[in-house]
Amino acid sequence: MAPILNGEVDIVIPTIRSLDFLENWRPFFEPYHLIIIQDGDPTKVIKVPQGFDYELYNRDDINRILGPKASCISFKDGACRCFGFLVSKKKFIYTIDDDCFVAKDPSGKDIDALAQHLDNLTKPATPYFFNTLYDPYREGADFVRGYPFSLREGVPTAVSHGLWLNIPDYDAPTQLVKPRERNTTYVDAVMTIPKGTLYPMCAMNLAFNRELVGPAMYFGIMGDGQPLGRYDDMWAGWCSKVVCDHLGYGVKTGLPYLWHSKASNPFVNLKKEFKGLFWQEEMIPFFQSVVLPKECTNAQQCYLELAKMVKEKLGPIDPYFHNFAAAMVTWIEAWEEFNAPAKAKIDSLKSA
Amino acid sequence: MAPILNGEVDIVIPTIRSLDFLENWRPFFEPYHLIIIQDGDPTKVIKVPQGFDYELYNRDDINRILGPKASCISFKDGACRCFGFLVSKKKFIYTIDDDCFVAKDPSGKDIDALAQHLDNLTKPATPYFFNTLYDPYREGADFVRGYPFSLREGVPTAVSHGLWLNIPDYDAPTQLVKPRERNTTYVDAVMTIPKGTLYPMCAMNLAFNRELVGPAMYFGIMGDGQPLGRYDDMWAGWCSKVVCDHLGYGVKTGLPYLWHSKASNPFVNLKKEFKGLFWQEEMIPFFQSVVLPKECTNAQQCYLELAKMVKEKLGPIDPYFHNFAAAMVTWIEAWEEFNAPAKAKIDSLKSA
Repeated sequence: MAPILNGEVDIVIPTIRSLDFLENWRPFFEPYHLIIIQDGDPTKVIKVPQGFDYELYNRDDINRILGPKASCISFKDGACRCFGFLVSKKKFIYTIDDDCFVAKDPSGKDIDALAQHLDNLTKPATPYFFNTLYDPYREGADFVRGYPFSLREGVPTAVSHGLWLNIPDYDAPTQLVKPRERNTTYVDAVMTIPKGTLYPMCAMNLAFNRELVGPAMYFGIMGDGQPLGRYDDMWAGWCSKVVCDHLGYGVKTGLPYLWHSKASNPFVNLKKEFKGLFWQEEMIPFFQSVVLPKECTNAQQCYLELAKMVKEKLGPIDPYFHNFAAAMVTWIEAWEEFNAPAKAKIDSLKSA
Repeated sequence: MAPILNGEVDIVIPTIRSLDFLENWRPFFEPYHLIIIQDGDPTKVIKVPQGFDYELYNRDDINRILGPKASCISFKDGACRCFGFLVSKKKFIYTIDDDCFVAKDPSGKDIDALAQHLDNLTKPATPYFFNTLYDPYREGADFVRGYPFSLREGVPTAVSHGLWLNIPDYDAPTQLVKPRERNTTYVDAVMTIPKGTLYPMCAMNLAFNRELVGPAMYFGIMGDGQPLGRYDDMWAGWCSKVVCDHLGYGVKTGLPYLWHSKASNPFVNLKKEFKGLFWQEEMIPFFQSVVLPKECTNAQQCYLELAKMVKEKLGPIDPYFHNFAAAMVTWIEAWEEFNAPAKAKIDSLKSA
């Protein structure tokens, strides 16, 4: 299936270093277009291995392209990757960290992570009832006895969240307590996260349908000049999940695995995330209680509504959330500028 | 862990034939007590392999022991197994079908299904937030980044739902369409089904904490004289899930697997279940919308409340649901007779 989708997929990679890791992915990524977001010092030269088709944006590019709206894109933080989601024109985005390599399945075969993500994204999801044999659309599986027939068509899948062998995605306290823990369990399953249930979305190995949920995949203001880091993907995960639940789209987690090569420094991580460890105790109940108005019928509208709620409900925790809510609005303004809706396009053609 | 729990577990087996399948389970089941529910003709002699510790009840026993309340126990249907839950005095129940055998894990080792169930039941569950690396209490796993710390203690586990290799648990239409499908995928995971999400609970390989949720594990009136079959475990699954959600207990699914040896006849199954295929389209939305009153603080109270709701909301579908609701009340009366609450026990000691 993957080959026919080449032209519909962008791979977004945030980085501060040379992208040697791409050599490892060459057989799988070479047919696709890469969007590289260079974080940190824009005068540094990022080396991209030969043969890859890519565009690269550094901070100067982002400032030039977005002007004053560039304030909504984080600096010195992996959150900057969402700039790539904004400028992409493709239907599907796959985003991956540059310390992640090709994993092997239990038979020893290299896992084509992107192909599995595209399989997840192009098959329906089942958020309204749990299927005990996992993905009912997988070869050799189906809906079990007692699964309502009216729900067997499923719903469109908007997000495919992949996992990691070797170094698990732990917070700093868990890293500190379990420095030697490695994930060696290969769980051969893809499942839909039920409607109404939140999960911690990690961006290390993540794919989504940009047309369905792109505007909700904003990674927030993190890193340089902000009191928080390492919550960019969590934030996008909470927002995109409540938006998918509202719009009737599915979110899957499980396969594919990749190989996460090295743990980041737990002391540095603790510094970045420590306010988040408190705040998440209020942020998560907030997202669990979000009810979006019926009038919101696309991801942009939902996201603007969320921005209002964030300002009102999370604003009292810290002034940071006021800035955050404002950045959410800026993000949608930028999104609409770069992704003019069909009607606006037609209007501009008419007036030309 | 299993050995210290021998005295706290009953294995409940409904059957109409000789229990030769127990030979296959001997190393795992011999240390435990069995409660055998003989269905159908009570004059038939059920052969139990030597060396097992068991009690056996046939229909005459059930009628004698329960008197008029025996009407709530199904006849000529596997639903009769819940009589075993009623007369057990143990904390944990494991129930299994007599066409199920020991499965092997991917390394070729025999799976001790009961030990895995007891592991599931004695470790906490996490119904309020999804952990992407599955069971966080498993050796080598933990909560991932972004999992709220306030939820990491988990909640008591009330139900452990195991799966099946070889013959999957399909409804009659799926059996007819896919007569040759076999489940060969071993998914090495245990997970908590999130709060608010229903699932199709199959009784082929099921364990639960009788003290926490026993009264909600009623298998209804099915089979002889009733318009429905093969929905006994589904019903118990819906009820026990909404009761667990209300009381703050967890429901797990996944490991352990057993080997399901043969598919039942799809034509016979279709006849039994065909009304259920319609009715589930109304029953499931009913259970999805159930809100139990705060005043219900144990499974009995919850179940009586459910009986009222069933009468009111499902009664209009078919007179059967009126009888069903009445049987639910009878079941709780019988439960309370056989499982006097602690206070009543103390009172009776005082008055003696």
